Amino acid sequence: MFESAEVGRSVTKESFNREEPKLQTELLKAQHALQEARVQVAIILSGVEGAGKGEVLSRLCKWLDIRGLQTYAFLDEAEEERERPRYWRFWRVMPPRGRISILFGSWYSQPIIDRAFRRVGKAPFERELNRIVDFERLQTDDGALIVKFWYHIPKKLLKQRIKADKKDKQHEANTPFFKKFFKRFAEFLEVSERALRKTDTGFCPWHVVEASDGRYRDLETGRILLAAFRKRLAQLPQKDRPVKEMDAEALPLAEVKTATVLDRVDLTQTVSDKEYRKVMEKMQKKLYSQAWSAYLQRHNTVAMFEGWDASGKGGAIRRVTAGIDGRLFRVISIAAPTDEERAQHYLWRFWRHIPRAGYITIYDRSWYGRVLVERVEKFATETEWSRAYREINEFEAQLCEHGVTLMKFWIHTSAEEQLKRFKEREKLAWKQHKITEEDWRNREKWTAYEDAVNDMVAHTSTDYAPWTLVAGNDKKVARVQILRTFCERLGEAID
Amino acid sequence: MFESAEVGRSVTKESFNREEPKLQTELLKAQHALQEARVQVAIILSGVEGAGKGEVLSRLCKWLDIRGLQTYAFLDEAEEERERPRYWRFWRVMPPRGRISILFGSWYSQPIIDRAFRRVGKAPFERELNRIVDFERLQTDDGALIVKFWYHIPKKLLKQRIKADKKDKQHEANTPFFKKFFKRFAEFLEVSERALRKTDTGFCPWHVVEASDGRYRDLETGRILLAAFRKRLAQLPQKDRPVKEMDAEALPLAEVKTATVLDRVDLTQTVSDKEYRKVMEKMQKKLYSQAWSAYLQRHNTVAMFEGWDASGKGGAIRRVTAGIDGRLFRVISIAAPTDEERAQHYLWRFWRHIPRAGYITIYDRSWYGRVLVERVEKFATETEWSRAYREINEFEAQLCEHGVTLMKFWIHTSAEEQLKRFKEREKLAWKQHKITEEDWRNREKWTAYEDAVNDMVAHTSTDYAPWTLVAGNDKKVARVQILRTFCERLGEAID
Repeated sequence: MFESAEVGRSVTKESFNREEPKLQTELLKAQHALQEARVQVAIILSGVEGAGKGEVLSRLCKWLDIRGLQTYAFLDEAEEERERPRYWRFWRVMPPRGRISILFGSWYSQPIIDRAFRRVGKAPFERELNRIVDFERLQTDDGALIVKFWYHIPKKLLKQRIKADKKDKQHEANTPFFKKFFKRFAEFLEVSERALRKTDTGFCPWHVVEASDGRYRDLETGRILLAAFRKRLAQLPQKDRPVKEMDAEALPLAEVKTATVLDRVDLTQTVSDKEYRKVMEKMQKKLYSQAWSAYLQRHNTVAMFEGWDASGKGGAIRRVTAGIDGRLFRVISIAAPTDEERAQHYLWRFWRHIPRAGYITIYDRSWYGRVLVERVEKFATETEWSRAYREINEFEAQLCEHGVTLMKFWIHTSAEEQLKRFKEREKLAWKQHKITEEDWRNREKWTAYEDAVNDMVAHTSTDYAPWTLVAGNDKKVARVQILRTFCERLGEAID
Repeated sequence: MFESAEVGRSVTKESFNREEPKLQTELLKAQHALQEARVQVAIILSGVEGAGKGEVLSRLCKWLDIRGLQTYAFLDEAEEERERPRYWRFWRVMPPRGRISILFGSWYSQPIIDRAFRRVGKAPFERELNRIVDFERLQTDDGALIVKFWYHIPKKLLKQRIKADKKDKQHEANTPFFKKFFKRFAEFLEVSERALRKTDTGFCPWHVVEASDGRYRDLETGRILLAAFRKRLAQLPQKDRPVKEMDAEALPLAEVKTATVLDRVDLTQTVSDKEYRKVMEKMQKKLYSQAWSAYLQRHNTVAMFEGWDASGKGGAIRRVTAGIDGRLFRVISIAAPTDEERAQHYLWRFWRHIPRAGYITIYDRSWYGRVLVERVEKFATETEWSRAYREINEFEAQLCEHGVTLMKFWIHTSAEEQLKRFKEREKLAWKQHKITEEDWRNREKWTAYEDAVNDMVAHTSTDYAPWTLVAGNDKKVARVQILRTFCERLGEAID
């Protein structure tokens, strides 16, 4: 989940100074419109220690109209809080209609910290997460808008910040948990991922923000907040919608191109023909015996391929299946749904092909269509695709709990490489069927798809079912990476 | 939860024969309208063994158009099911749009049975319940209508049926779990109550049906089904709503007066003045020392009074508080919400008065206003009050988990007794302020309130926070019952 926040996004001082006034103007307009419509708003700031949540808080207080605003921090529990059920304190800080509460720490803090330090077991932790979902639903059912931010920095950067902090005695005193926290970084991330995944609901989604660069962090926060404000305003019945000169399309920052998780994929890798043949042969042999072992051990496997048009999904799948006994696998190609499938929930057509014990199902395109093509082409409404992240996570959790090994591949190519391949296909007679008008149309929406892929990885790359982002500019590199992952994951499962 | 299904409701053969044709006609109309609107419907039949679920199934197959219908039973797991994640089998039986699946047993059966026989622990059971909520939400988000029936009979009746069954060798063979189940009746009810409560959501509520009398059971099933069908049809966008000559108001059975949980309260009880004074004095003394013990042990207590107008809530509360040191309790009278309260979630104004450790809060009227006056007077929409049951149960669960003792009293009087008291109030100068136009208006809605109270008890009388239905026609009887309950519950808590 957090890999999408380790991309190295940053914003220059010039961009920041250019964007900030526009953003603030729009935020204030939206804030006042929400006030007029009597919508209550809670903004939750949470995440890794040292990511600069305090600075975000200051920035928001500067940008927003503080007359309609209240901030709360949950540092330590007061006597009067301990004496009452835990949520009493959260009910106290919920904003009345028309006002905003910014919560520094929240109902998430204690459960995550308690679990990271193993002070509570898994079951009570899960119970707390369910309680959180109930609480947030209850508030949003009542019309509240809850915007949840999670600020992330890589461990390396945190270490640097701790070092820098040592020189500043004053600051150290302010953050007593800093070092203690650092030691538990891995547990903290693991527990946080679980918490975020479980509570990443359509009605109250998480926004994971990369916090390595302060200017990017703050602008992104403002942009997300503005989008959330506007979305809530658009949900109001027409008659309650305050008339404000608001250009709904003009979201600031649109011109600041920021990186996505895909930019981390190194597309320059190559492999020699000789090396390629050697490695492939070795791994296909290995896969053959692994697949038979999985069969004998009655172990199910699901692999799933997504990627750009012409990224080589089909070829990669053929290289995998070449290494598996034909009786042990099935390839399911996902095209437009049939009538029978359209009459069912979108997950139904994937559930139906889940393999029996010992078998392997390979999906060529998958349930992620819901948050990719259906999102970009607007076949699904925003409500539908945004709640799909949690639905998909739950679906995959059920597979993994049953013991299914689940592999998810996104084959990435650059736009230039795709163009090259499209042109080749048009030239070669026997490849012309593979290129259609639709492919060219999809290509025009490259940026929209990039955003969708980035969100997809951010929301659905989980500890039990991580995404493998495959470097696809060189088909051989891609195939080696895929085969290797296959052997690794199967190997873990059957021994 | 199940006390509302042990009231002894029955329907005569004549009524049944009169009602059945009307009901069937309307059901068929609604079924075809849903079919045309392409709404998928799942009907779940579950409950106590021996309650006649099989007979209900036959009846539904007779009433509905079987061309649009499929039935499924989950008796034993097939090999191919065991080899896949558990929900695979449920996905298989979900109806396509426009069709109905009747499920005899469902995703509830195995978790409840496993837990009743203590084959699984509490935590995995809770996890299963959350999974169910997720699954049902996912389906209803997709437009599905899921109607959940729970058939209940008292243990005594089950025993009789087992006896009768013994003579019928054939039948016994059909229900192999009958006796095994009987031995675990208490655990089964406890576990079922938990399951129902946790999954009794606004979007997919439970319908607990008293099944002692077959005719009542079947008519009630049909009536609930029809209401659910019509509700779903009304939710369709106007343009998709099939035009059918359907009189939305004419719900069959409206004229068949059936009993409610309130009819079980014995209103004929009396107590002599002498006995009353003796008992009250003794219990008030006991309460006084109990309240101090609770204070010293830092134990919080919440008591809550609801009841008909003029049922004597105020008098009863004064008799309780007379027995408690004035420093230890607060009485919160709930009237129309203040501006500040109206700007918050409806539960907020109750949360804010939750007592500190050692103290007692007594609410004169309560959060149940949401499902009583707000329902009857239409201050809350059906969506709002029907999801409130679960919200309230969660709220009370949080209190009880924190160790709060929670007492809930409904003071019941007959309509005649109320009329007598209203007239007295009008006569006595110093009581005239207690009777208003509104009281007379409420009185006209007696039946609507009776239904609301019955539903309230059915949905919110839980093992940790049961309702106490107080016989209120004789004020002295009521006060004794209340004081006694107070002493009992406080006594359990502090020792």
